[in-house]
Amino acid sequence: MNMWYTEKHSENVGITMRVSETLFSGKSEFQQLDIVNTLEYGKMMLLDGLVMVTERDEFVYHDMLVHPALFTHPSPRQVLVIGGGDGGSIREIVRHPEVELATLCEIDGLVVDKSVELLPSMASAIDGQHPKVKLHIADGLAYIREHQNAFDVILVDSTDPIGPAVGLFEKDFYRLVHGALKADGIMVAQSESPFYHAEIQKNMYRNLRAVFPLVAMYQAFIPTYPSGLWSFAFASKRYHPLRDFQRDRAARRNFHTKYYNEDLHSGAFMLPTFAKENIAE
Amino acid sequence: MNMWYTEKHSENVGITMRVSETLFSGKSEFQQLDIVNTLEYGKMMLLDGLVMVTERDEFVYHDMLVHPALFTHPSPRQVLVIGGGDGGSIREIVRHPEVELATLCEIDGLVVDKSVELLPSMASAIDGQHPKVKLHIADGLAYIREHQNAFDVILVDSTDPIGPAVGLFEKDFYRLVHGALKADGIMVAQSESPFYHAEIQKNMYRNLRAVFPLVAMYQAFIPTYPSGLWSFAFASKRYHPLRDFQRDRAARRNFHTKYYNEDLHSGAFMLPTFAKENIAE
Repeated sequence: MNMWYTEKHSENVGITMRVSETLFSGKSEFQQLDIVNTLEYGKMMLLDGLVMVTERDEFVYHDMLVHPALFTHPSPRQVLVIGGGDGGSIREIVRHPEVELATLCEIDGLVVDKSVELLPSMASAIDGQHPKVKLHIADGLAYIREHQNAFDVILVDSTDPIGPAVGLFEKDFYRLVHGALKADGIMVAQSESPFYHAEIQKNMYRNLRAVFPLVAMYQAFIPTYPSGLWSFAFASKRYHPLRDFQRDRAARRNFHTKYYNEDLHSGAFMLPTFAKENIAE
Repeated sequence: MNMWYTEKHSENVGITMRVSETLFSGKSEFQQLDIVNTLEYGKMMLLDGLVMVTERDEFVYHDMLVHPALFTHPSPRQVLVIGGGDGGSIREIVRHPEVELATLCEIDGLVVDKSVELLPSMASAIDGQHPKVKLHIADGLAYIREHQNAFDVILVDSTDPIGPAVGLFEKDFYRLVHGALKADGIMVAQSESPFYHAEIQKNMYRNLRAVFPLVAMYQAFIPTYPSGLWSFAFASKRYHPLRDFQRDRAARRNFHTKYYNEDLHSGAFMLPTFAKENIAE
């Protein structure tokens, strides 16, 4: 089969990948879900026609959403992921021995079910068997409203600010997250591409700064995302991602990370000039 | 016109861009040259059908090929570029007041002529008028063989290791470059994508280490290059890119750089684990 999937990153540019088969295609209450097999990137999940994760490059996104916060917080025991129904973030969280409970709050049960069925390399920790993992199929906003002052780290593993995730880029949401964190808590959220999404970044970081005393952007390279340059927002009540970074703990970790390492941790916060300018105060 | 240019980065993945017009298409003695207008990335130069530069993202490549070496060498007076017929590297070099002479040695005169005609934002410094720029249409290997012990910095601004540039990734070439540098000289060369070109990188860095006492890799994100993650080899006789980095001089520079800055300089050397593994000794 000579089928190509093309995702347009704007009207005038896109990425195109050869697809060998469709493994699942269906509609949930919230969105269109497709899981296909690609020849270059392995299995790939699409939500509403946009690439969410591929087997070949998901390690970048999940390493970088999880480890910078978990190696900055001195004692990340209670960790919440909002979104992230593919399970990759939870898989990385439970590798940290300090973690006592990793909670996944995903709005769309179909994403979890199909990930467990078709993407086991990501979803291994959310199959209902892991003793440190709790799964809630629920709206993230409602969930954190009912769980204030409960978490050391909250990771917002959302889609783009269209569709079901649009509320996850608003000030009201960040206030709820702030309240759901303990007094020294850290939030990290994916924050789009500095190359293509300057306007979204500007608003998002303004909203974050209105709520958190310490906000910083860091970057990672994700080849299947628009432009390849992706970013994350680090929003913190107390700990600074560089000054409070627990470098020794990161260097002594007893698991392999294909992207993250203790040098890259700091390097990721050293941004290109144009990216800094996107979020200048 | 609804024309799309698609560059395959492998048999199974590629980038696709909407093209509004072809500005030049012709064959030199060495290669096929095309310059087209794209809607997302402005004018774009292709050699043998592969993207070399676009107006929108060339700033990344040229900032990162030039400034790390020129802000590490304490006195970069004589600088040579091998390849780089679009002129973007020379444009960045002559912004450094320490530079007395910037020499361009490009094998293909057609690339220079058409860049001056059609890509003036890159080629402004190689139009024959700049007092600090000297232009040679010549084979880089022959040129450096005749100019030993002559340069503070040599930048290898080459195409991929296919076609006319294949010799620029070999040990014999690096020996010639080593000889063409003064006793404290620095060479920087583009070194492909850590994500797609692990095997090329492995050989290239092995060749470099056989010749230079100090070899390091650094990274930059270039959206129109394969995978978006690109790399550069820093090969040096004396100066270390971090320990000898002239941070104050970089911070006091009197020109704007849209990608490079004095924090990013160090961050660029903090590599993802898989990239470090590509070139592990």
